[in-house]
Amino acid sequence: MLDYCFKLDFQVRDYECDMQGIVNNAVYQNYLEHTRHEFLKTLGVDFVYFTEKRIHLVAIRAELDFKYPLKGSDLFWVGLNVERVSRLRFAFKQDIYRQEGNKLILNAKITATALNERGRPDKIPELEKAFNSHK
Amino acid sequence: MLDYCFKLDFQVRDYECDMQGIVNNAVYQNYLEHTRHEFLKTLGVDFVYFTEKRIHLVAIRAELDFKYPLKGSDLFWVGLNVERVSRLRFAFKQDIYRQEGNKLILNAKITATALNERGRPDKIPELEKAFNSHK
Amino acid sequence: MLDYCFKLDFQVRDYECDMQGIVNNAVYQNYLEHTRHEFLKTLGVDFVYFTEKRIHLVAIRAELDFKYPLKGSDLFWVGLNVERVSRLRFAFKQDIYRQEGNKLILNAKITATALNERGRPDKIPELEKAFNSHK
Amino acid sequence: MLDYCFKLDFQVRDYECDMQGIVNNAVYQNYLEHTRHEFLKTLGVDFVYFTEKRIHLVAIRAELDFKYPLKGSDLFWVGLNVERVSRLRFAFKQDIYRQEGNKLILNAKITATALNERGRPDKIPELEKAFNSHK
Repeated sequence: MLDYCFKLDFQVRDYECDMQGIVNNAVYQNYLEHTRHEFLKTLGVDFVYFTEKRIHLVAIRAELDFKYPLKGSDLFWVGLNVERVSRLRFAFKQDIYRQEGNKLILNAKITATALNERGRPDKIPELEKAFNSHK
Repeated sequence: MLDYCFKLDFQVRDYECDMQGIVNNAVYQNYLEHTRHEFLKTLGVDFVYFTEKRIHLVAIRAELDFKYPLKGSDLFWVGLNVERVSRLRFAFKQDIYRQEGNKLILNAKITATALNERGRPDKIPELEKAFNSHK
Repeated sequence: MLDYCFKLDFQVRDYECDMQGIVNNAVYQNYLEHTRHEFLKTLGVDFVYFTEKRIHLVAIRAELDFKYPLKGSDLFWVGLNVERVSRLRFAFKQDIYRQEGNKLILNAKITATALNERGRPDKIPELEKAFNSHK
Repeated sequence: MLDYCFKLDFQVRDYECDMQGIVNNAVYQNYLEHTRHEFLKTLGVDFVYFTEKRIHLVAIRAELDFKYPLKGSDLFWVGLNVERVSRLRFAFKQDIYRQEGNKLILNAKITATALNERGRPDKIPELEKAFNSHK
């Protein structure tokens, strides 16, 4: 198991499961997004604040490997690492582990960028500062 | 633009948008899943029926390239192609286009397999027959 | 069955079903909201436009009677009527019927109001005009 | 403020907010359902287990009074009380309070019943025992 710079604990809620009795695939992206936002908050970057300023942090590519399904009430955690992959792009490596047996549930890589008020990919000072302080 | 063996029309519902005013990333997986299930129905493969038989069609990998966001009320369609990538795996190529300007919104590749009643990847006769008749 | 001033057709998507194999209760509110927004559009009232102007149409009370569950792939429609219940409040009567057997699925009454830019309940000229033209 | 026999803490996740920047109405039903299921677990009643036995705990009526909206990242809690309202029906009184200022967000009353394997409202021994032990 990797070291993660940020971890967040969750529990599956029954409404997140579909008729197969397992967490619906789309819901994992909710878990991953929430973890990224909570991580960014630890850097002083608040998603709500950015949205109000019309700065959008957006995913441009998601790769998700579904290893094993989560079921209702399962306890699990999401681990996160982030690295800059180009001048304007960041890659979030995010893995989900079920607490029971520390079982790997999902590996994900989410590539993201920031769009300025005009909708163009751009360096956002607050974000740069946050990532620099993080290293 | 590619030829697709199946297309499905949609309209964005406002509740699918997040605070950025655009469709939340996770929702695209809902659109893609619904399109796959509707496509499979045209082959005589009903997801509900399979679930009751405890045969699970599961995604094992998803790759999503987010090209441009959808907004509230946007009309769009999902195109789908499918190919067998190994004895037990299928790849669904799915693209989303907004009707206005036929704008590319998302490219996706979803790799899936079928699990038998014991949870093992397996050839499912109904599915094999469907895919063979489809060619 | 009542006469409705607006009707909208839907089909259940499998991801809207929960582990019981039926549409999750919360999802009916999504159907109802989408129907209200589509109805308002026919009056020239666009929810996205209002949101950008910081005018919020909000539900203040919801009463939902769940009569019979919808299942995956079910075709259904939502019927809507609206009446003013006080100077600043509207009541949307919304019923859901499954197409097969025209079976009653849900009765709902959603009481709503409009909040102005300062977050206070208020008469919104565009909305007044729409409702007056509607009668 | 009432005394509650069960309380559960939550935090709003950004994906639960809609384009108005506030939690979408339907999502409150998710919060309420999750709280009921967690409460039932404390009585030894597991929703997953019941679903597998084809016993369905279903809401038959929901009344929701939306008092004030939750926003992204808000901390809140759901309080729950339950009472039998007839031989086969239970009423869950559920209120949501934002932690900041202990602000009332929502009052809800959810009337529920249990359906046996044949889909009929019925007394379920495990549930009866749980509720009796609870008093």
